[in-house]
Amino acid sequence: MSESTEKAETAEKAEKLDAADELAPKRAEFALDDVVYLDGNSLGALPAHVPGRVEDVVRRQWGELRIRSWDESGWWTAPERIGDRIAPLVGAAPGEIVVGDSTSVNVFKALVAAVRMAGEGRDEILVDATTFPTDGYIAESAARMTGCTLRPVTPAEVPGALGGRTAAVLLNHVDYRTGRLRDLPALTAAVRAAGAVAVWDLCHSAGALPVGLDEHGVDLAVGCTYKYLNGGPGSPAYLYVRRSRQDAFDSPLPGWNSHVDPFGMRTSYEPAAGALRGRVGTPDILSMLALEAALEVWDGVTIEAVRAKSLALTDFFLECVEAYVPDGSVESLTPAAHEERGSQVALRCPDAGEVMKRLIERGVVGDYRAPDVLRFGFTPLYVGFADTERAARVLGETLSR
Amino acid sequence: MSESTEKAETAEKAEKLDAADELAPKRAEFALDDVVYLDGNSLGALPAHVPGRVEDVVRRQWGELRIRSWDESGWWTAPERIGDRIAPLVGAAPGEIVVGDSTSVNVFKALVAAVRMAGEGRDEILVDATTFPTDGYIAESAARMTGCTLRPVTPAEVPGALGGRTAAVLLNHVDYRTGRLRDLPALTAAVRAAGAVAVWDLCHSAGALPVGLDEHGVDLAVGCTYKYLNGGPGSPAYLYVRRSRQDAFDSPLPGWNSHVDPFGMRTSYEPAAGALRGRVGTPDILSMLALEAALEVWDGVTIEAVRAKSLALTDFFLECVEAYVPDGSVESLTPAAHEERGSQVALRCPDAGEVMKRLIERGVVGDYRAPDVLRFGFTPLYVGFADTERAARVLGETLSR
Repeated sequence: MSESTEKAETAEKAEKLDAADELAPKRAEFALDDVVYLDGNSLGALPAHVPGRVEDVVRRQWGELRIRSWDESGWWTAPERIGDRIAPLVGAAPGEIVVGDSTSVNVFKALVAAVRMAGEGRDEILVDATTFPTDGYIAESAARMTGCTLRPVTPAEVPGALGGRTAAVLLNHVDYRTGRLRDLPALTAAVRAAGAVAVWDLCHSAGALPVGLDEHGVDLAVGCTYKYLNGGPGSPAYLYVRRSRQDAFDSPLPGWNSHVDPFGMRTSYEPAAGALRGRVGTPDILSMLALEAALEVWDGVTIEAVRAKSLALTDFFLECVEAYVPDGSVESLTPAAHEERGSQVALRCPDAGEVMKRLIERGVVGDYRAPDVLRFGFTPLYVGFADTERAARVLGETLSR
Repeated sequence: MSESTEKAETAEKAEKLDAADELAPKRAEFALDDVVYLDGNSLGALPAHVPGRVEDVVRRQWGELRIRSWDESGWWTAPERIGDRIAPLVGAAPGEIVVGDSTSVNVFKALVAAVRMAGEGRDEILVDATTFPTDGYIAESAARMTGCTLRPVTPAEVPGALGGRTAAVLLNHVDYRTGRLRDLPALTAAVRAAGAVAVWDLCHSAGALPVGLDEHGVDLAVGCTYKYLNGGPGSPAYLYVRRSRQDAFDSPLPGWNSHVDPFGMRTSYEPAAGALRGRVGTPDILSMLALEAALEVWDGVTIEAVRAKSLALTDFFLECVEAYVPDGSVESLTPAAHEERGSQVALRCPDAGEVMKRLIERGVVGDYRAPDVLRFGFTPLYVGFADTERAARVLGETLSR
C-alpha cells in the first residue's frame, strides 16, 4: 500500500469513527476554533456558556446584590455544592468532597490528616518518586511538620516498602509525564492492609476515566479542576474525605470556614461535621462559580463513555503516529495496555521543545516536558478522531523535514 | 434649636462636605445604585470597569488563547505583579508582596515562617485574644505543628508578655468588631526589641489608612483584598515579606510555584528568591485578574487622602448618630481618638440583628456581629457625606419607633 493510500484510508477511518461517536455533539458546547487542542490535560477548553454565567456573577451577584449574595446567590455553600457535582465523576457520594484552595494546599491538608489518622508509632511517609514535583515538595513539608521521614519510592515499589512504620502514602493516579495509569484498587488495598492511609492525587485522571473512590476504599484524595474538568485557569482544587474517615479528619489548616458555627465568631475551634472540615478560608467565588458552570457540560455524560472514547482516541493516535511518523523519530512512553494508560500520549522526541513550537504554529496544540517529552492530552468531550489524525499527520510532516 | 432645624442643618453640612470632597468623583467609577453601602469593610463594591475586563479574561484569554495565556496574558506572573500594585497602598516596596490563597492560608505561612525565623529556643506564640477567629484557629495549628505553645493576650498586654521565649506575635491592625486601630509602630518595635517576629493582619486596614510596613520595620504581614481593596468575593489574599527577611522565609507550603525553576520539574525543592517564595500552587486566575482590574480605581489616589476622608466620614457619622438617635439606644465601641480608629463605626445595640435587617430594608446596608454589634464600614472611594447622614437618619428613625 502506498503512503498516500494509507493516509487516505486513515483519514477515512477517522471520519467513520467521528460519525459513530456518541460524544461528538458535546464539542459544540465548547468555544473552539480550528485548532486541534491536545492540551486539555493542562488547561481544559472553555465551555461556551461559561462567559455569560461569569458575567452574571460579576455584574448582578457582586455588583447589585453585593454582600447579600453570600446567602442569596449561594456563595457560602459553593464549596460543598460543587464538591457534590464532582462526586459522581470520581465515584464519591454527596458530602465527601469540598472544593477550594490549590492542589498543593489540599495535598498538605490530606497528607497531614493522613499521618494523624494513621496514629502513634507510624512515622514514615512514602511518596511516589516520579510524582509531579509539587506533591513531593509538599510531602517533604508535611513530613517535617509531623515528625515523619519521607521516603520516595516508585509506585511499583510501594507494596514492598509498606510496613508498621508507614503512616501515609502519596500516589498519583496517572503519571503527569508518561500518562501511565496506576493500579488504584490494588495499591489502595495494599496500603490499607498495612494499616497506613493512602492519599491519591487525581489531577490527571478525574474527568478522563473512572476513579471509583468509594468502591475501592480510598480514604483521602485531591485533584485539580482545570484539566479534564474544564474549570478555567487555576480554578479551585478539591479534597475527598471518605465518609467513614471524616470524624478523624484533623486539618492542619482549620480556618473559620470549617468551623461548626462560622458566624458564631467563637474563640475556640470546633470542626464542622463531614467533608466541610476540609474548608479553610473565604472561597474565591469568581473562580469557583466559573467551575460550577463549567461542570454542566457533564450533564448526560457517563465517565464510562468518556473512558471508552479516550482509549479509542489514544489507540487511534498511536496507530496514526505509527503510520505517519518516520521510524525511530519518536518513542511512546505511554503504556500500550489499556489498564495502564491514562488519557494522554507521551512521545519521547529529541528537541521536543522546538518540535512542539512548530506543531503549535501549524495549529496542533500539545505541550512538552523538559527535556524530551511531547505530551498530547485527549479530552473526549471535545477532541475527535479527525483532530487526532490531523495531529499525527502534522507531527509526521514536521519530523520528516 | 428644633429637631427638624437640626436635621436640616446636618443635611446641609453633608452637602457642603460632599462638594469639597476631592475623592467624590471616584464614586462614579463604581457600580452603585441608591443604596447606602456601608458594608465595604466586608465586601467592597464592584468597580464599573471590572466586568468587561473579566469578560476578556474568560472569552479571549482562556477561550481563545487557552494555554498560551500563561505567558502571553501574563497569568504566570500575576501573583507578584498584583502584589507590586498593592505595595504602595500598604507602604511596601516592589518585590515584597505576593498575592494568592486565602487570608487563613497566608496566616499559616507567615506564622510558621515567623517561628522559624525567630530561631531555636523560642517556643511561644502570642496571639491577639480579640482576633478575628480564623487567625486564632490557624495560630493554634501553627503552634501545634512547630512545637510552640499558644498564648492569647490582648494587644495592650503584648509588651508585658514578650520575653526570651516569644517566637512570634500575631496581631490585627484594626479590630474587626470594634474598629479599633492598634499602634502598629509601637507594637512592632516592642516585638522586634524582644527578638521575636510580628505578623500583622491588615484585613481591616489596607486600603483604608496608611500602614507603613517598610517604614515601621514590620517583618511579615497578610491581608485580604475583598474589603477596602474591592477585589471581589473571595478574591485572593496577599503576603508581605520584608526584603531583609526574604532569604530567611521558610514556607510550610513550598508548592511548585515558589520553586526557583518551576518548569524544571526538579525532584528537590529550591525556593525562588524574594517574596515569590510565598507562592504555593497554581493561581486562581479569574479571581486574581478581577482583583488586578479592580485595583485600577486607586490610580491617582493617595492613601493619605483616603485616610483623611475616612476620619471625616466616621466623625460625621458619630455626630449624626448623636443628633438623630434616641439617647441611650446605642453605644459606640469605636474609639473617639483618631489615632485609635479604623474606618468603621461599631455601635452596640440590643437586637442588632433585627435592627440591621430593618436598615437594609430601607436601603442602608451595614452588617452586624453577634450578639449586639452594628457595623458600619466607611469606604472613602465611594461613600459620601450625604450617604452618611442618611444612614444615621434611617438608624435614628428605626430606633425611635
